[in-house]
Amino acid sequence: MAEAKQTENVVYVGNKPVMNYVLAAITQFNEGANTVTIKARGKAISRAVDVAEILRNRFMQNLNVQNIAIGTEQVQGESGTANVSTIEITLSK
Amino acid sequence: MAEAKQTENVVYVGNKPVMNYVLAAITQFNEGANTVTIKARGKAISRAVDVAEILRNRFMQNLNVQNIAIGTEQVQGESGTANVSTIEITLSK
Repeated sequence: MAEAKQTENVVYVGNKPVMNYVLAAITQFNEGANTVTIKARGKAISRAVDVAEILRNRFMQNLNVQNIAIGTEQVQGESGTANVSTIEITLSK
Repeated sequence: MAEAKQTENVVYVGNKPVMNYVLAAITQFNEGANTVTIKARGKAISRAVDVAEILRNRFMQNLNVQNIAIGTEQVQGESGTANVSTIEITLSK
C-alpha cells in the first residue's frame, strides 16, 4: 500500500559492499519513499557517507541532504560497555 | 592576537589516535576560537565523528553541532582518479 511508505525509510549500513546499500536506498525511493535515512555506527560511518554521495552524484541527482545527525550509543561488548559513534543521513527527493 | 582567531579554525583528522585530534580542537577553543571545523575524508570520516562526540560528551559539554556537510573530492592515485567522500563537522561554543 502506498500509505505504508509514508513512514520513515531506513537503510542500516554495515560491512557489506557499498553498492548493496545504494541499491537498497534506490529501491525504497522507487517504492514511493520521499525520504530515506541512512544509518551507521562505528567504522561503517564512512561507508554511510559513501552511500549518500554515490546516490546523489551518480544515481539520483535530485536528492537533497535534508539532515545529518551524529550521536553516541553504548554497546555491550565482551569486556564491558563501550561507546560507539553513530550517524544518520536523511536524504529527500 | 585575538583578531587572528576570528578566522575559521580547522582540525584535519587522519590516521593518528583520536585523542590527538580531540586535544587539537580543545587547544583551538582555548586559544579563543568560537567555532572549530573537523574535516576528514575516506576511512577517517568515522574518526572525525568520534572526535566530535568525545569533545561534546567528555570535555566541552557546552559545544553545539552547528553544521555537518558531506561531499566528494577527486583524488589522484597511482591507478588514475578516484572519488573519496568528505565530511566537515562544525562545532561552536
